[in-house]
Amino acid sequence: MNPAQAERPVRAAQPVIPVYRPDLSGKERDYVIDCVDSTWISSIGAYIGKFEAAIAGVTGAKHALSVCNGTVALHLPLHCMGIGPGDEVIVPAFTYIASVNTIAQTGAVPVFAESLRGDWLLDPEDVERRITPRTKAIMPVHLYGGACDMAAIMDIAQRHGLQVLEDAAEALGTTIGGQHVGTFGHAGSFSFFGNKTVTTGEGGMVVTNDDALAATMRMTKGQGQSTTRRYWHEVLGFNYRMTNISAAIGLAQTERLPQILAAKRRVAKIYKESLAGMPVTFQQAMAGVESADWLVSLLLPPGTDRDRLMAEMQAVGVETRPVFYPAHHMPMYRREEHFPIAEDIAARGLSLPSFPALTDGELARVCEALVNSLR
Amino acid sequence: MNPAQAERPVRAAQPVIPVYRPDLSGKERDYVIDCVDSTWISSIGAYIGKFEAAIAGVTGAKHALSVCNGTVALHLPLHCMGIGPGDEVIVPAFTYIASVNTIAQTGAVPVFAESLRGDWLLDPEDVERRITPRTKAIMPVHLYGGACDMAAIMDIAQRHGLQVLEDAAEALGTTIGGQHVGTFGHAGSFSFFGNKTVTTGEGGMVVTNDDALAATMRMTKGQGQSTTRRYWHEVLGFNYRMTNISAAIGLAQTERLPQILAAKRRVAKIYKESLAGMPVTFQQAMAGVESADWLVSLLLPPGTDRDRLMAEMQAVGVETRPVFYPAHHMPMYRREEHFPIAEDIAARGLSLPSFPALTDGELARVCEALVNSLR
Ligand SMILES: Cc1ncc(COP(=O)(O)O)c(CN[C@H]2[C@H](O)[C@H](O)[C@@H](OP(=O)(O)OP(=O)(O)OC[C@H]3O[C@@H](n4cnc5c(=O)[nH]c(N)nc54)[C@H](O)[C@@H]3O)O[C@@H]2C)c1O
Ligand SMILES: Cc1ncc(COP(=O)(O)O)c(CN[C@H]2[C@H](O)[C@H](O)[C@@H](OP(=O)(O)OP(=O)(O)OC[C@H]3O[C@@H](n4cnc5c(=O)[nH]c(N)nc54)[C@H](O)[C@@H]3O)O[C@@H]2C)c1O
Repeated sequence: MNPAQAERPVRAAQPVIPVYRPDLSGKERDYVIDCVDSTWISSIGAYIGKFEAAIAGVTGAKHALSVCNGTVALHLPLHCMGIGPGDEVIVPAFTYIASVNTIAQTGAVPVFAESLRGDWLLDPEDVERRITPRTKAIMPVHLYGGACDMAAIMDIAQRHGLQVLEDAAEALGTTIGGQHVGTFGHAGSFSFFGNKTVTTGEGGMVVTNDDALAATMRMTKGQGQSTTRRYWHEVLGFNYRMTNISAAIGLAQTERLPQILAAKRRVAKIYKESLAGMPVTFQQAMAGVESADWLVSLLLPPGTDRDRLMAEMQAVGVETRPVFYPAHHMPMYRREEHFPIAEDIAARGLSLPSFPALTDGELARVCEALVNSLR
Repeated sequence: MNPAQAERPVRAAQPVIPVYRPDLSGKERDYVIDCVDSTWISSIGAYIGKFEAAIAGVTGAKHALSVCNGTVALHLPLHCMGIGPGDEVIVPAFTYIASVNTIAQTGAVPVFAESLRGDWLLDPEDVERRITPRTKAIMPVHLYGGACDMAAIMDIAQRHGLQVLEDAAEALGTTIGGQHVGTFGHAGSFSFFGNKTVTTGEGGMVVTNDDALAATMRMTKGQGQSTTRRYWHEVLGFNYRMTNISAAIGLAQTERLPQILAAKRRVAKIYKESLAGMPVTFQQAMAGVESADWLVSLLLPPGTDRDRLMAEMQAVGVETRPVFYPAHHMPMYRREEHFPIAEDIAARGLSLPSFPALTDGELARVCEALVNSLR
């Protein structure tokens, strides 16, 4: 059975150096036990509000709404912004599939745009070219801890009257000029899957400064239920609630976010120094961007057989990840379109083990494995 | 802040006798600690497969697929059965809103049907009257631990070539002639919210005997990802995955299901005996049905001011629940239709505290509060 499958059992032989491993060495265990001992394990409980406040604090957003994963953290704001059939949403072709699926799920059409060569992220000029009378929103995606050019994107959005939802699933801790990603647009979404900078196991958060949108989202994620009358549902809603246990883990993680980020930045720095002489190109960042270095990612030299390289690294105990296939190549979104930069990044990109507890020795082993496989 | 809201904080003053309180006195704590200590807290982990196997065992279903709540446990099979725009799905007007919302979420139209007077559940004759050329499926809902007339419903479905999805969110442990609900139709869905017979905090499960449907659902709940190629997505999918921690709790709960069910049946028996002389009518069960007695529910005498009665009971420390408002009264589904039986049940129904650990003294207090408020 493939580990990528939904129910993904623990691997029989866990690779010695995984791509990710959460660091649960803070108060995670105590807080989780507190949930179980208090019997508050559902989406009722004190940790939920505390975790939301912690993420509001970290991001500087006025509202933070916890949800059960980073995918529904995209669907909820799209739905509550009123995006649906007949609308178009511009999204990079090079992204994780959830960015695109959640648009399609509303009934709107995802319109793909090209990426920039340096930072692999949404190209604002191409966004502007793809605007039509049906365009309702833009979804920039801050991949691998990077940050899109939000000044340019917000300028376009304002000129054309478009909504902006930032997919910051991979970018907790990333700032542009000191402002946290996810707070430039009308809403921003984070993921707390087990491989993220802050994890809750599965989990997500939507942030916004818009009071009305926040209120609509809060009602909608809780089955559309009235705030004053139980079992009376005023709008079509979903069950997108996070549990108290997930929030407890997230709170403990967020309490240590500065240390986690420092550890991840150290990892990125060591990789860059160690591989400086090699023919690989790291994802870059625009001026002013402080990347959270979620997954350290690079382009292999043109012509490299990435599958072979990954298999070789795996054989010496180093797990890696290819970057994402471009969405316009997937069966359900296939189109006669070309995005040369996105396609090139997708074909050559590789993500290295990037969890905070990586030791100098492990980092050296990863670099050695990569160097050997590149020969 | 209203406790019914999504983030629902712990009440300042928890009512002395709540409607529900999970019994986590088995291996829940040990299993959860095992997840945290092993660091497997996301939707990867050994408890997920074990919990799925346990529910397959309890229900006798061939496949059991864990998901993050009982609402997506309805949306997933509806979506994977191919239900969408242009289709109609017949559902009782008297149900919890998630049954209806998940149909609407696919783009299909929920068509409401009447309930039966005795067991409050979907009336098969009315279902048959509401079939049109657009009808694709029937969703019987086994409310409060009861069981719909599945023989009649399956007969109708077969004659008209319709799919059947059983909403068994409230009916884990309920059988008809020894066969578990959820296994009569093409698929069945369970909820494991904090007030359910087996809880995982938030959680759900889909069961089916259909291999192809199971395979489609397994792929779809895991982002539609290929089973052999990571980040390659073959169909539009969702993130509906359950966490290892939730599954760990669910496994521990399911290990004690016989004891939990016995305790709940004792609670129901005591209520029925204690209130035998009162002008209330308990939800009934058809011959052959063994109810799991999820929430013991009854009709108050006609003309009772239910809000006043509930407030009075609350004032003496007894939490209760009204039954559900009928879906055709909600703003987003309002229609010029009438379902006299459903409307009458909805107006007069009341659910009593029904958690397994209720003591004789607490049960007597609930009955006393009800009797006093009925005067
Ligand atoms: C731009 C963007 N938008 C939206 C989303 C949606 O967010 P969400 O997944 O719905 O929360 C995402 C999230 N994409 C993630 C998804 O979360 C996806 O599930 C994930 O795919 P993957 O690489 O196949 O993930 P994996 O193999 O299951 O886990 C990656 C590594 O993390 C480790 N890991 C995961 N969970 C745990 C855990 O609980 N414990 C330990 N020890 N390790 C864990 C695994 O062992 C691997 O080493 O990585 C993708 C990049 C996104 O990137
Ligand atoms: C027919 C049908 N179809 C689909 C669904 C959807 O399933 P899901 O909720 O998505 O899993 C459902 C689920 N409906 C439930 C929902 O799960 C809903 O959230 C729930 O509404 P509620 O009555 O407003 O729930 P509550 O007030 O949050 O909790 C009910 C009692 O349980 C207690 N409780 C809940 N969680 C916990 C917990 O973690 N700890 C403790 N100690 N008590 C808990 C509360 O204190 C209350 O006494 O009850 C409804 C009947 C359904 O009934």
